[in-house]
Amino acid sequence: MAGFRVFLVVFTVCVVCVLVECKYMVYNTSQGIVPGKINVHLVPHTHDDVGWLKTVDQYYVGSNNSIQGACVQNVLDSLIPALLADKNRKFVYVEQAFFQRWWRQQSEAVKKIAQMLVTSGQLELINGGWCMHDEAATHYIDMIDQTTLGHKFIKEQFNVTPRIGWQIDPFGHSAVQAYLLGAEVGFDALFFGRIDYQDRAKRRDDKKLEVIWQGSKSHGSSSQIFAGAFYAGNYEPPTGFYFEVNDDSPVVQDDINLFDYNVQERVNDFVAAAFSQANVTRSNHVMWTMGTDFKYQYAETWFRNMDKLIHYVNQDGRVNALYSTPSLYTDTKHALNESWPLKTDDYFPYADRINAYWTGYFTSRPAIKGYVRMMSGYYLAARQLEFFRGRSKSGPTTDSLADALAIAQHHDAVTGTEKQHVANDYAKRLSIGYKESEGVVAASLGCLTQSSPSSGCKRPVNFNQCPLLNISYCPASEIDLSPGKKLVVLVYNSLGWKRTGVVRIPVINDNITVKDSTGKLITSQLLPIVNASITMRKFYTSAYMGESPSTTPMYWLAFTAVVPPLGFNTYVISSGKTTASTSIKPTSYVFGGSQTRAIEIGPGNLKLIYSGDDGKLTQYTNSRNLVNISLEQSYIYYAGDDGHKDLQASGAYIFRPNGTFPIQSEGKIPLTVFRGPLFDEVHQMINSWIYQITRVYKEKEHAEIEFVVGPIPIDDGIGKEIVTQIKTKIENNKMFYTDSNGRDFLERIRDYRADWDLQVNQPIAGNYYPINLGTYIKDKNTELSILVDRSVGGSSITDGEVEIMLHRRLLHDDGRGVAEALNETVCVHDTCSGLTVQGKYYLRLDPLGEGSKWRRSFGQEIYSPFLLAFTEQDDKWMNFPRPTFSAMDPSYTIPDNVAIITLQELEDGSVLLRLAHLYEVGEDKDLSVTATVELKRVFPNKKINKVKETSLSANQERAEMERKRLSWKVEGSNAKQETISKGGPVDPVKLVVELAPMEIRTFIIDFNSNLVQY
Amino acid sequence: MAGFRVFLVVFTVCVVCVLVECKYMVYNTSQGIVPGKINVHLVPHTHDDVGWLKTVDQYYVGSNNSIQGACVQNVLDSLIPALLADKNRKFVYVEQAFFQRWWRQQSEAVKKIAQMLVTSGQLELINGGWCMHDEAATHYIDMIDQTTLGHKFIKEQFNVTPRIGWQIDPFGHSAVQAYLLGAEVGFDALFFGRIDYQDRAKRRDDKKLEVIWQGSKSHGSSSQIFAGAFYAGNYEPPTGFYFEVNDDSPVVQDDINLFDYNVQERVNDFVAAAFSQANVTRSNHVMWTMGTDFKYQYAETWFRNMDKLIHYVNQDGRVNALYSTPSLYTDTKHALNESWPLKTDDYFPYADRINAYWTGYFTSRPAIKGYVRMMSGYYLAARQLEFFRGRSKSGPTTDSLADALAIAQHHDAVTGTEKQHVANDYAKRLSIGYKESEGVVAASLGCLTQSSPSSGCKRPVNFNQCPLLNISYCPASEIDLSPGKKLVVLVYNSLGWKRTGVVRIPVINDNITVKDSTGKLITSQLLPIVNASITMRKFYTSAYMGESPSTTPMYWLAFTAVVPPLGFNTYVISSGKTTASTSIKPTSYVFGGSQTRAIEIGPGNLKLIYSGDDGKLTQYTNSRNLVNISLEQSYIYYAGDDGHKDLQASGAYIFRPNGTFPIQSEGKIPLTVFRGPLFDEVHQMINSWIYQITRVYKEKEHAEIEFVVGPIPIDDGIGKEIVTQIKTKIENNKMFYTDSNGRDFLERIRDYRADWDLQVNQPIAGNYYPINLGTYIKDKNTELSILVDRSVGGSSITDGEVEIMLHRRLLHDDGRGVAEALNETVCVHDTCSGLTVQGKYYLRLDPLGEGSKWRRSFGQEIYSPFLLAFTEQDDKWMNFPRPTFSAMDPSYTIPDNVAIITLQELEDGSVLLRLAHLYEVGEDKDLSVTATVELKRVFPNKKINKVKETSLSANQERAEMERKRLSWKVEGSNAKQETISKGGPVDPVKLVVELAPMEIRTFIIDFNSNLVQY
Repeated sequence: MAGFRVFLVVFTVCVVCVLVECKYMVYNTSQGIVPGKINVHLVPHTHDDVGWLKTVDQYYVGSNNSIQGACVQNVLDSLIPALLADKNRKFVYVEQAFFQRWWRQQSEAVKKIAQMLVTSGQLELINGGWCMHDEAATHYIDMIDQTTLGHKFIKEQFNVTPRIGWQIDPFGHSAVQAYLLGAEVGFDALFFGRIDYQDRAKRRDDKKLEVIWQGSKSHGSSSQIFAGAFYAGNYEPPTGFYFEVNDDSPVVQDDINLFDYNVQERVNDFVAAAFSQANVTRSNHVMWTMGTDFKYQYAETWFRNMDKLIHYVNQDGRVNALYSTPSLYTDTKHALNESWPLKTDDYFPYADRINAYWTGYFTSRPAIKGYVRMMSGYYLAARQLEFFRGRSKSGPTTDSLADALAIAQHHDAVTGTEKQHVANDYAKRLSIGYKESEGVVAASLGCLTQSSPSSGCKRPVNFNQCPLLNISYCPASEIDLSPGKKLVVLVYNSLGWKRTGVVRIPVINDNITVKDSTGKLITSQLLPIVNASITMRKFYTSAYMGESPSTTPMYWLAFTAVVPPLGFNTYVISSGKTTASTSIKPTSYVFGGSQTRAIEIGPGNLKLIYSGDDGKLTQYTNSRNLVNISLEQSYIYYAGDDGHKDLQASGAYIFRPNGTFPIQSEGKIPLTVFRGPLFDEVHQMINSWIYQITRVYKEKEHAEIEFVVGPIPIDDGIGKEIVTQIKTKIENNKMFYTDSNGRDFLERIRDYRADWDLQVNQPIAGNYYPINLGTYIKDKNTELSILVDRSVGGSSITDGEVEIMLHRRLLHDDGRGVAEALNETVCVHDTCSGLTVQGKYYLRLDPLGEGSKWRRSFGQEIYSPFLLAFTEQDDKWMNFPRPTFSAMDPSYTIPDNVAIITLQELEDGSVLLRLAHLYEVGEDKDLSVTATVELKRVFPNKKINKVKETSLSANQERAEMERKRLSWKVEGSNAKQETISKGGPVDPVKLVVELAPMEIRTFIIDFNSNLVQY
Repeated sequence: MAGFRVFLVVFTVCVVCVLVECKYMVYNTSQGIVPGKINVHLVPHTHDDVGWLKTVDQYYVGSNNSIQGACVQNVLDSLIPALLADKNRKFVYVEQAFFQRWWRQQSEAVKKIAQMLVTSGQLELINGGWCMHDEAATHYIDMIDQTTLGHKFIKEQFNVTPRIGWQIDPFGHSAVQAYLLGAEVGFDALFFGRIDYQDRAKRRDDKKLEVIWQGSKSHGSSSQIFAGAFYAGNYEPPTGFYFEVNDDSPVVQDDINLFDYNVQERVNDFVAAAFSQANVTRSNHVMWTMGTDFKYQYAETWFRNMDKLIHYVNQDGRVNALYSTPSLYTDTKHALNESWPLKTDDYFPYADRINAYWTGYFTSRPAIKGYVRMMSGYYLAARQLEFFRGRSKSGPTTDSLADALAIAQHHDAVTGTEKQHVANDYAKRLSIGYKESEGVVAASLGCLTQSSPSSGCKRPVNFNQCPLLNISYCPASEIDLSPGKKLVVLVYNSLGWKRTGVVRIPVINDNITVKDSTGKLITSQLLPIVNASITMRKFYTSAYMGESPSTTPMYWLAFTAVVPPLGFNTYVISSGKTTASTSIKPTSYVFGGSQTRAIEIGPGNLKLIYSGDDGKLTQYTNSRNLVNISLEQSYIYYAGDDGHKDLQASGAYIFRPNGTFPIQSEGKIPLTVFRGPLFDEVHQMINSWIYQITRVYKEKEHAEIEFVVGPIPIDDGIGKEIVTQIKTKIENNKMFYTDSNGRDFLERIRDYRADWDLQVNQPIAGNYYPINLGTYIKDKNTELSILVDRSVGGSSITDGEVEIMLHRRLLHDDGRGVAEALNETVCVHDTCSGLTVQGKYYLRLDPLGEGSKWRRSFGQEIYSPFLLAFTEQDDKWMNFPRPTFSAMDPSYTIPDNVAIITLQELEDGSVLLRLAHLYEVGEDKDLSVTATVELKRVFPNKKINKVKETSLSANQERAEMERKRLSWKVEGSNAKQETISKGGPVDPVKLVVELAPMEIRTFIIDFNSNLVQY
């Protein structure tokens, strides 16, 4: 090792010179709070996007600087000596995806120093998730997972728990962020930069930028958090106080031997900026966010100038300046013992100025958004299966998917506001993560289908999976089922409930039968795969894999699977002939001629009625609950503004429509109907680039609408944002409901904000809200609910109407930094065309008050679809040793109002379990009640040793968190205190978990031994 | 002190992890030379201009970054930890003006670390002057002074002596740089970037970029130096190897956990660049200059990538990479024991591409150039006077002028290639430095005029000085000499010879007499101050001081002063009437009418004859030596190219004429002649913006031509470069001579280069050379010499002709970075006009072989004009106790062929003495011989204790330097070795210094005691 570079830095403190004699200037940076003065809390920070204009790794190593000069490695490398140089200097770091990259590369010596700095509070890790997740296009389960990942890293390496939420850049702020990812992870405060410009103006006038935010109706004051919106609407220093290498703010020149000495001038600038901010801030404490995107590449440049400012400003004495952190700032505010204004609901939508509503990104890059959601559900299931088999120390594991998913929650990832090459990077990471998890899943299923749980897994079955099933591509099922071959389909259900659902797979034969695991023939349905699907399959397999497959499936085989909770069932497909296995012949209806009879669709209770005149959907009728309502469904597009008026185009961030245009087909649209025993399908080719399939299942009371939109034409030079509209006569009186990150439903009122008198300048874009689970409208009789399969934007622009934006293709950049038009294309060889997006939404009508059951239960099914695995066997094969499985007690099921949102084995063999009550207080007459989960029956084969309840991010004991969290006084709330229902402590013997409405409880469970396997 | 920021860093080395186990990567950077491979010497460096686009202080503190992102403080601050992190890392630092700024601000702890790094060789200080001086527009005395200043700082703080000349950016390279500021300061090598593009191409082809340069004909091989011109013509890394913060070269991404791993690709790039350079370099050692202007603002970014490159390139093994320095590189080359090509003369002029001759800057900003030269002479004199009185510990001292002058030698300072605001900064520094030195001079003279040398200085005389005498402004002499008042003029002579010269001062009275210090009336001459001078005085005093003076002088009073060496004489001016004190009435000659008789000017041996037809100078005749030659003198201008053809305009750097235009007056020019007993003056108003006064002195045999040029008109949209041409019939056959930095004269041949076959593309600009002392042409009979008062460019474009460029005003930037047109203006209130430049040149003709005496002796007088000091006394005052003074033995004078170029008291009371032989070998038949200086008689009142001869920059003993310096083998020079004459050792008893031709010897002299004062 001789000659190799190794080093250890030891720092000691000593006084090196007497001030009077030496020319070396020592700055007094030790100042604390000074009561009675305006205290300027200087908070040194960097904002490091986990991908945006460059990929996360490019940002970390500092490559691709021609796009953006940014290198996080520089930040962290240079930070350490800068903090060591003065113990009063402080810094907050946020994004753990970067921090762990750096950490991994450090020597033990540097790690020790960093740990010392964290322990001393000089370096504070805040927010602490893997990324600073978005709050509009993210699902709460993903938010929890990515936060948990970061908090776990921090806890393990530094034994600390972040105290502060720091969502400084996301484009609007959600209720779930405030109460779940804020209060419930133990944060004492939440800070952010971006709120609506009108809101900010009023809050500045009223000194209400800082509030107590109660994001949850169900939890009320029990999950409140101190929330501060920054003074200037961003997270940057005041003008003239940027000190990055090569920044042109005037540095403090205090060397009297040099020209341009400017101390008094700079002190005056500082004092003026402090007064200006103090004028709109309650109390005499103001925070300056000393940093911005990817700053502190050479940290000393900032600290050098802040040292001087603190020294000279305090000598001046008009205001008091100090190194601070959001924690210290929060503690200071708390110590004032004042009452603060109350804020409820959320901060959506966000406009940073007139006509600039950041509501486009709710839908931008719908394919990525769909992929993220699909992976999220898969990750949940894969961890369950990883646990059932036992986490592998040597891999594969689900960790790489965890990492990719966590990164994808970044506010320039799933949002669609990144550059195209960065979007590709996110997709690549997800794909790599998926691939490894697919191995975990296959290995687990391969073992679980073996008989003896305790005998290990000697001859695991080789299972294949089909991630491209959505484009009708599944090599595992597209096998020639000639006599002698069997296709075994394993259907895994990650929900805590027994579940029945229709499985659809592409096959190449028509004479086939489906048997369940007992060998019983079951009903199946065979539909020809339409040309539109084959074309898309061919194009996208070429695009994704470089070549299109040699075989082409002919049919969709559908059958109903019935699967136990946290378990699987198997189905065997083989050649043979039954009545049901004959391919369904479509019926085509062409309009404009003699056709006049209405067309009724639906083999079960629900019927959709299409007009005999023009084939349009006209009526929805449910024979069970007698809901019968006229209904129209159509597509429109908004022309994306090109920005020629005022430089504000519609783009990746911003939705700026310039006209609403109905999408008319060429002539009337023929209906093609496939009727079958399990479901009916209605195919409509709306125009050359919109294809729609509506399915009505025999056993379901909702309509499933599959859309294929794209390539959106731009030959006319106009970008387009494609929207589906559902029109009814429901008298919703401007009110509609959208979910917050897939969890709480918030009431929205068109052209109205509760917090200020809205000046309406964008009557469409300004009424768009993010939708992750769904949206509904209601009147005194009926509820219309729409559920979605990914994050989208939507609204109710006229009474009775609900609309969802499905896809966007735009030709102009909207001027918020990404510097690309959102014009997604897909290329095969050198031929590129606009991206086609395929997805689904679900529609249902219920009598008033009865919609939530479907929204909640079926919402979970959408999030956690059946996981399918395939294996080909020969004729001799009869059955798996274990053809059906449930991890839980066979007689047990999780209550209808509870979901297992995390079941994951940790490195030490303990298990992380998260249970979520799915209903808000008062949401459902039956299910908005306290539920119980019996842990012993959830883990029937394990001996539970210890159950530790933790904070939501699992980084501290729940009781400890509750004890530490600051409580705040709310203005005017000294009146009646509401009663909040929460589940009680878990009795260590009974091991029954209570969950009150909307409660999520997180546990780390130790088992006595890992010997007992499933 | 509690809470104050203090720190001490202690570094120890320990192995922190075992490579196999840990993820912390340890790079092997310890590689040394590997014989048989191409060795790539990575030389980390920054090039920090001591002012250019920003001022020196702005560069240091990093202000004004909107002009250029540059902060030297960052470089040095970040360098220390980067070097500490790996003992194999190395760095060279150059510009001591910056380094001392940083040094002054450091704690003792950091200073100790820096000293340790210098001692270990990790941080090497090379070149080591205050700045990287220019080599064209600088005088050798200034080059020596500024180098001495830096070397002294380095010696004192680090006890080391720089070994390497590093003139990487100056725009051409001088012979004086090679032999005086190279070999004679003890450098083993000299490296530079810029040589003519044709020269470089040939040298690359011939593998002759690296040479042994003998810059001195007189010293020959005794002052040779290894000199390397860089491969690419600049001092930057190969393309793709820039690693500054935010640079977009690909960083080495070697973390396999991250995407875009690129080690092999980067290694391949490295190897390819190494081979490419090795192909044109002798031996298998190549140097990569890893840095450029103001880089290493966060030094770690460079070292991080170089660490990796060294590690992986050496793993690859095709070439060998190592951290190196120019010293190590030089030692390696020396150790090869090879012979190298010989280079003589210099590398002027420099063109970086076709039509781009950097010969404009020889004249750019002539006013700054004049100011620098004036301050240089003043500084020399002021240090003498400072020594005579005894250097003050509490100030004032001459140090601030030393600093200002040193900074002004930078290659973007006196060159005129800086932005206007930076030029103003240099002028301001000189002015501040002058002001303090003026105090030193006044105090010294105030004491020296007192009687008793040993009694101290109880009642010093209050002397005033007149730095604006050139614009006829001298408040000290412009006093009302009514009866009862006396004006005492002290005339100080800083030369080592007794000297006679005419003093001219503005006065307001006409009835005045001049008496010498014995009370004897002496001849004086009174001339009316012409309107042109009054106008200029008024404008420029307003511009410089904000207001114009209330009184206006009426006359120039001229008298002859006779002053002992290193001494003064005093003259008393009082009211009274003599014949000589009557103002001379001018004679005006208007042409075009009847005037036909030639006009003869000159009261002594020299006569100038002007044509009676048109007033033009026609004949030069010297009645003593019978030189009689026809002579024309005229002005022309070159139109500055605007760059529209090929984007190459004429500008601050580049002279690119687009046509030659004679400057015609409106009609014929009237001659106004003032004849007097001391001299005759001919005034010619050439046109509305050129005024010329030609003086012929009774006691001198040269013509003095004072020119006032400006504002150069630009109403026609054309920039102009103003040139004076002297035309004779001398048959110089393309040959002319220009000095190297005011010292050696080099032979120039029009349209020819000794080192390659010149492709002539700019027949004027490509023949321009820098002139600091003068230029001459000759034929077999006659020499025509021109001496200048500042740095200028000049040439001989046709046989018999000599031309000097006096002023330039240009309207386009020439694309070399300064990004300003060289369009100097002067503003009074809001009215700006082009800068007017006033200056002098001197012209003389001699019989062949007799010109050098005048060029050398009078050249010294131009450099060191009389220093005038004034005091007003009343009628009772009769005389100073000591009205006349010489520091030397009254009977002694320095030989005619020797000049005292430094006489300076150091902080410890010792004296720095530099003696310069003024003649080259063979230059003058009488004076090109060894001279002797008797130190005892130079310091008659001091007891010399010890005389230590040192290197030219006084940082090491001469003998030590000679012993250490590497000697090099020159190709094909194994033939006869020339004999070089050098002065022998100084006998410690006799204390006589011998000086061979062109020899400069530097001594530090200790005196027994400081009690004996002058």
